[in-house]
Amino acid sequence: MTTQELPRDRDEREEREAIEDERVAAVTDLLEAGDPEGAAETLADLRPAEVAYVLEHLDDDEVAEVVAQLDTDVLTDVIEFAEPHTRSEIVQSLDAEALTEALTEMPDDIAADVVQDLDPEAAAIAMEGLTEERRQEIEQLLTYPEDTAGGRMTGQVITVAPDLTVSDTVRSLRETAADTGRPFYLYVTDPHRHLLGVLNLRALITARANTLVTEVMRSDVITVDAYTDQEEAARLLARHNLLALPVVDADGRLLGTVTSDDLIDVLEEEASEDMYRMVGVHEEEDLSGVWGSVRHRLPWLMVNLVTALSAAWVVSRFEGTVEQVAILAAFLPVIGGQGGNAGIQTLTVIVRSMALGRIGLRDTSHLIWREARVGILLGSFTGLAVGLVAYAWQHNPWLGGVIMLALLVNITVGVVAGVLIPMALEKFDQDPALSGGVWLTTATDLSGFFAFLGTATVLVDRLS
Amino acid sequence: MTTQELPRDRDEREEREAIEDERVAAVTDLLEAGDPEGAAETLADLRPAEVAYVLEHLDDDEVAEVVAQLDTDVLTDVIEFAEPHTRSEIVQSLDAEALTEALTEMPDDIAADVVQDLDPEAAAIAMEGLTEERRQEIEQLLTYPEDTAGGRMTGQVITVAPDLTVSDTVRSLRETAADTGRPFYLYVTDPHRHLLGVLNLRALITARANTLVTEVMRSDVITVDAYTDQEEAARLLARHNLLALPVVDADGRLLGTVTSDDLIDVLEEEASEDMYRMVGVHEEEDLSGVWGSVRHRLPWLMVNLVTALSAAWVVSRFEGTVEQVAILAAFLPVIGGQGGNAGIQTLTVIVRSMALGRIGLRDTSHLIWREARVGILLGSFTGLAVGLVAYAWQHNPWLGGVIMLALLVNITVGVVAGVLIPMALEKFDQDPALSGGVWLTTATDLSGFFAFLGTATVLVDRLS
Repeated sequence: MTTQELPRDRDEREEREAIEDERVAAVTDLLEAGDPEGAAETLADLRPAEVAYVLEHLDDDEVAEVVAQLDTDVLTDVIEFAEPHTRSEIVQSLDAEALTEALTEMPDDIAADVVQDLDPEAAAIAMEGLTEERRQEIEQLLTYPEDTAGGRMTGQVITVAPDLTVSDTVRSLRETAADTGRPFYLYVTDPHRHLLGVLNLRALITARANTLVTEVMRSDVITVDAYTDQEEAARLLARHNLLALPVVDADGRLLGTVTSDDLIDVLEEEASEDMYRMVGVHEEEDLSGVWGSVRHRLPWLMVNLVTALSAAWVVSRFEGTVEQVAILAAFLPVIGGQGGNAGIQTLTVIVRSMALGRIGLRDTSHLIWREARVGILLGSFTGLAVGLVAYAWQHNPWLGGVIMLALLVNITVGVVAGVLIPMALEKFDQDPALSGGVWLTTATDLSGFFAFLGTATVLVDRLS
Repeated sequence: MTTQELPRDRDEREEREAIEDERVAAVTDLLEAGDPEGAAETLADLRPAEVAYVLEHLDDDEVAEVVAQLDTDVLTDVIEFAEPHTRSEIVQSLDAEALTEALTEMPDDIAADVVQDLDPEAAAIAMEGLTEERRQEIEQLLTYPEDTAGGRMTGQVITVAPDLTVSDTVRSLRETAADTGRPFYLYVTDPHRHLLGVLNLRALITARANTLVTEVMRSDVITVDAYTDQEEAARLLARHNLLALPVVDADGRLLGTVTSDDLIDVLEEEASEDMYRMVGVHEEEDLSGVWGSVRHRLPWLMVNLVTALSAAWVVSRFEGTVEQVAILAAFLPVIGGQGGNAGIQTLTVIVRSMALGRIGLRDTSHLIWREARVGILLGSFTGLAVGLVAYAWQHNPWLGGVIMLALLVNITVGVVAGVLIPMALEKFDQDPALSGGVWLTTATDLSGFFAFLGTATVLVDRLS
């Protein structure tokens, strides 16, 4: 990114944000002035995602006031775009009748999410008002775990029998004008719903009327099983540049599709999760309640304490050396910090590359050898730099040498551990991003302090 | 994610990876056996993304051997799915004629990327063979910076005049069967290409034949300017659950569209970039050359040295205290580490939430106040825990108290700095993810060591 276009972009983004903030302020002012109708009116011409933004920036009480003034069909659209917390605020503000209406009208996958958010009693009441068919649609989606392709899919797909012609298909498409979420693909299925092929609307329009759909469909369809992890489905979709991915059961019967707009959310969530897990923040941390944040972050700090205190114990074993050469203490944080920094760099690259599917377990030995060389080089340069500073500062070449050695050791250890830890987690079916930092810092602190203070103890006469 | 479905998913992913690795091995074996035709044949029935995967796992020489055996039309497809390095390997293996053919057939946005990769001379030769129209299409795309909506868009869109009926449109769509990348939307434009509305194919099929397109189009289209940052475009698309976003010039004239498959890549790149920048790894780090990695990571370690050495200087000011109470040295890494850990947690959450557009500059004071409370709580709990351990270990309540105070101070400082630093970077139009960690560690180390050793110096008689 060159500096030239930055301001332009920033301006555009800031402008957009300013407009949205003004809307929030206008609504808040009107609510404070006791005019909820007026507040709701300012939202009338906005897009659903924009209304969702405003509601997300109001207090829960304010949301309830505004929601009471909005039509159910507007709210049905907004629910699709709102964050989970606001979504459940909106849903709770609806009466039973409005909720049933909303659950009927919204896409089935969103309806399933809404039902899942409700407490069991409220869910039962809401489901009762639905038609038998709709209830089954929603219940079907609820049978899959939330983070699988089945849990993310919509069951509202258009299927076509293989013996239809193009013109039959166009006619039936006109007749059943039912609104399906992403109506760009038609799926050709046999009477048992086995998936035979996929047809895009463009092909349908440009094909001759009396052609059979089986002649214009693509039959080498990439599909996923309903229990496929959502991230795996998202990667497949991204890799093959698809807009939708059909979801099938173990017998190849079409259950629904996951679409790229759902999977963009999945990739965003997974990236956040990886970033958060690497620093020990719970993935649901959302900067709302203070106590929630403390609960989401404290465990990691406590786990880190074990590392830190074991490093402290190592240092304490060399108390005598430190008493004689107190300046050694000044370099402990340098050694601990640099080993950790170098290791975290490798850890981050490895975790991210694994998440993107670029490397896997099979690359372990190659990467260890590679990173060992990187570590030795980084350790030598960093060690030399710190060693020279120490020499110049304390006028003692031995001190410089001891520090240089310690940095070479613990940067190399850190960088190699940055490969080993996520690979080991993957090997044992754990998330490679999970808390790798603790083990890494343990490795770098212990090796660095041992090397540093151990060598210093041997050379204590040269150092004091 | 429950533990139950994990193994299922892992198996599926591992199976897929195993199949791909076998393909790579088969191709390598055939090449070694001197049978490049056989190697190319094993790729014949694969999807372009799968061929790209195999090529990405071969040496450059091997790529050239395989490419020589593959048809240009196959390679044209594969280029779209290959990583930049492999893409340019493939392109370099093509002769001038094949390259011209590929540039003619591939989507215009990919063609522009390919031309951009070539050295100027090769680019000129390749462009010479193209038709005037095609050359202009590609050159038009090359006028926008790579990381903008214009740089990511395809100019191959279907436009429709507003005075056409639905049946006119369907007829013209049949006649111009030209292959456009994502043929799901038609754009209604006036004779000067001003965008009037968007029409999806579904609406076209279900509308009555003699309806005007202006009656079935949507006119409140969300558009982006060609110079909009690609990440901003991606967020807009994700937020409004769109599959494509029209790109317009300053006068509202349609230039092209960016589609969700492009923008998925953008979001992935931006997430990687944020993760890498936070730990000082260059965004192009790709685990290939050792020296490249050293060059990409060393600068950060050198910058961190300044922090680390300033912390060392602070400690050295208290050399006398450390000489008298050498055990203090053992707790220095604990204090430095925990303040850094707590601060990085906040920094990560803030940087990610800013990237996702959930918080902005306007939230600064609210977030500082919020995080200050989180920091005081985290600092109290962590301080108490370490204080008690120190007391129990060294049988000195004063030591425990000094440590507790230092941790309370530097964890609070770290957590508040975790908000302040990215907000300050944003304020000055810098990337909030950029090297926040250095400043943060400086803040926590200096405040922690001052508090710790300062108090220890005052209470030195109680500690020794």
